[in-house]
Amino acid sequence: MKATPRNLKKCFRPAIFRMRGYAPGEQPRSQAGIVKLNTNENPYPPSRAVCEALRRFKASDLRLYPDPTCAPLRRTLSAHYEWPEDGILAANGSDEILALLFRAAVGKGDVVQVPDLTYSLYPVLATEREGRLRTVPVREDLSLDFGRLDPRARLTLWGYPNPPAGNLFPKKEMESFCRKAKGLVLIDEAYADFAWDSCLDIARRQPNVIVLRTLSKSFSLAGLRLGYAFGHPAVLAQLHKVRDSYNVDRVAQAAAQAAFSPAALRETHAALSLILQERTRLRAALGALGFEVPESRANFLLARWRGKPDAEAIYRELKARGVLVRYFPLPRLRDRLRITVGSQDQNDRLLTGIRRVIRAKPRRRK
Amino acid sequence: MKATPRNLKKCFRPAIFRMRGYAPGEQPRSQAGIVKLNTNENPYPPSRAVCEALRRFKASDLRLYPDPTCAPLRRTLSAHYEWPEDGILAANGSDEILALLFRAAVGKGDVVQVPDLTYSLYPVLATEREGRLRTVPVREDLSLDFGRLDPRARLTLWGYPNPPAGNLFPKKEMESFCRKAKGLVLIDEAYADFAWDSCLDIARRQPNVIVLRTLSKSFSLAGLRLGYAFGHPAVLAQLHKVRDSYNVDRVAQAAAQAAFSPAALRETHAALSLILQERTRLRAALGALGFEVPESRANFLLARWRGKPDAEAIYRELKARGVLVRYFPLPRLRDRLRITVGSQDQNDRLLTGIRRVIRAKPRRRK
Repeated sequence: MKATPRNLKKCFRPAIFRMRGYAPGEQPRSQAGIVKLNTNENPYPPSRAVCEALRRFKASDLRLYPDPTCAPLRRTLSAHYEWPEDGILAANGSDEILALLFRAAVGKGDVVQVPDLTYSLYPVLATEREGRLRTVPVREDLSLDFGRLDPRARLTLWGYPNPPAGNLFPKKEMESFCRKAKGLVLIDEAYADFAWDSCLDIARRQPNVIVLRTLSKSFSLAGLRLGYAFGHPAVLAQLHKVRDSYNVDRVAQAAAQAAFSPAALRETHAALSLILQERTRLRAALGALGFEVPESRANFLLARWRGKPDAEAIYRELKARGVLVRYFPLPRLRDRLRITVGSQDQNDRLLTGIRRVIRAKPRRRK
Repeated sequence: MKATPRNLKKCFRPAIFRMRGYAPGEQPRSQAGIVKLNTNENPYPPSRAVCEALRRFKASDLRLYPDPTCAPLRRTLSAHYEWPEDGILAANGSDEILALLFRAAVGKGDVVQVPDLTYSLYPVLATEREGRLRTVPVREDLSLDFGRLDPRARLTLWGYPNPPAGNLFPKKEMESFCRKAKGLVLIDEAYADFAWDSCLDIARRQPNVIVLRTLSKSFSLAGLRLGYAFGHPAVLAQLHKVRDSYNVDRVAQAAAQAAFSPAALRETHAALSLILQERTRLRAALGALGFEVPESRANFLLARWRGKPDAEAIYRELKARGVLVRYFPLPRLRDRLRITVGSQDQNDRLLTGIRRVIRAKPRRRK
């Protein structure tokens, strides 16, 4: 191919040229034989109602643009969550809503505030927007000193549950901060269904709060890309300005709506219960093997390992055996593995793998 | 609901607060009985191979994230367009690629350059980025004085064919500008299949050129949201940094791939031929009714009307009769209608509607 443009640097914003993109977890091309516990996917298939909606989807309708504001889906969400329709925004995954929020709210030098341990996409988006990133360290016990958060920040974000450990910050402290905050607060509830809890009540009282949801995890629809946000209509109106006109395709709108039928919700909850049972079992089993695993309210565990071989080596050895978990080469996470709670069988294969790796005699050099 | 945040303005970038979003064409909730010729959709359904791919799609796969870079789809596109895989980027509609390009390339004060008549999303994106918009007027004969384009602009965009008239600018003049340009040039080929032409050859020689495509129009997949760009890998690498990790869902990836099977392409081309025949017929029929209609190489016509009632009134009267066309209340377009070329039946109903409206006696006031 032709040579790189000579003046490539001058074709882009300097901040973009300098930055690195977000690094997602590995997605192996073939899933055959792989135990995939690295990106918090659901081990169970989506509900039959969703599969049925796909089968019944009229492909000839694809010739027309989709509903630009997902009106029928928002009506469904409105009834389910008891939240006004015009306070709901749907998008191509919750990541799209995060990007919209940063585009609308954060300019050069605006303060973006996050715990130092949380979803690692937030700092990437702040860098893209040339925002000023302010991180507040999560304490060793996973709590956050909300008194150290700056109420003047343009945008503050955390998860509920908060990754990568999956703990819940206390609602009273969260709301007290939201009340003082002059800017926007995004509470990312990607994993809230696994905690049977939510901050929608806070958002109901505090108009500067946005609650973010996704169908990727509890609804087992990561491959569909469907996220939605709850917030004050006047706040969401600004996000709509930067949204693509047709950001959610027709298939995703139809499938997402089916996910909220009573039968679908029963199936989803049944799968959720199995995952929660396995979360308890897996945590205990990892503990028995010598990992320190704090309680998680999400569908993953953050397991600390201080033995030999080290956490990174365990990650690599597991990968070589077809078991994928997530390892973050970051200062505070070097001795930990983040492990998605899978099905009973997947978790058994993970535990077998770990046992082999940590009990294997270190190979002698000749 | 709770009151609007007191300090709403301070929660967002001032540029966002001031701007208005892009206004897409109307999308009526129910299509029953409507002749929809306002957003350049294809009157024929997508190919059977696409419908078949949807029917065969394994819904249980949706539990897993999609391929983050659409690798199998890019391989298919690479073979079809004879363009290297790493020089192709796929996205949730071509609008997403435009947004990625503006996010990566345009900062405050950077010059974005467009013809004054073109896709009206470009100026909206420039405003969002606080870029400096430079418009060069399209001449009355629809040509563009490429000598008036500034080669120092950060980003220059036009369509090939260029909306809203659907004409092609001469390739020699385009390439001569691209060669001089210090910034990026995006050539939007949303409608290029209707012209049986392309600027991929220019992009092959000029590494600062990006060619943009979509499956919405010629492939009749507006409801699927699938766009793709061809460019130099080093240029696309910067766009990847701001792209959501999983921006194209599993269904769209599978359906889009099916659209390029030999049988699917034959069907798509057959439908294309029908549309081109109708384009000729509709243009002549509108001409016979007194409209001035320049030749279009796209699937729409820009029809000028200097009679009474005026173009806006015709648009409204047609709408009242269930025929949607596009009217832009802009200085240079006030006396024109942009009309999508539909099926023979749709075009007949449009023509009947227009005849009634323009021959109706003006209503007398009592």
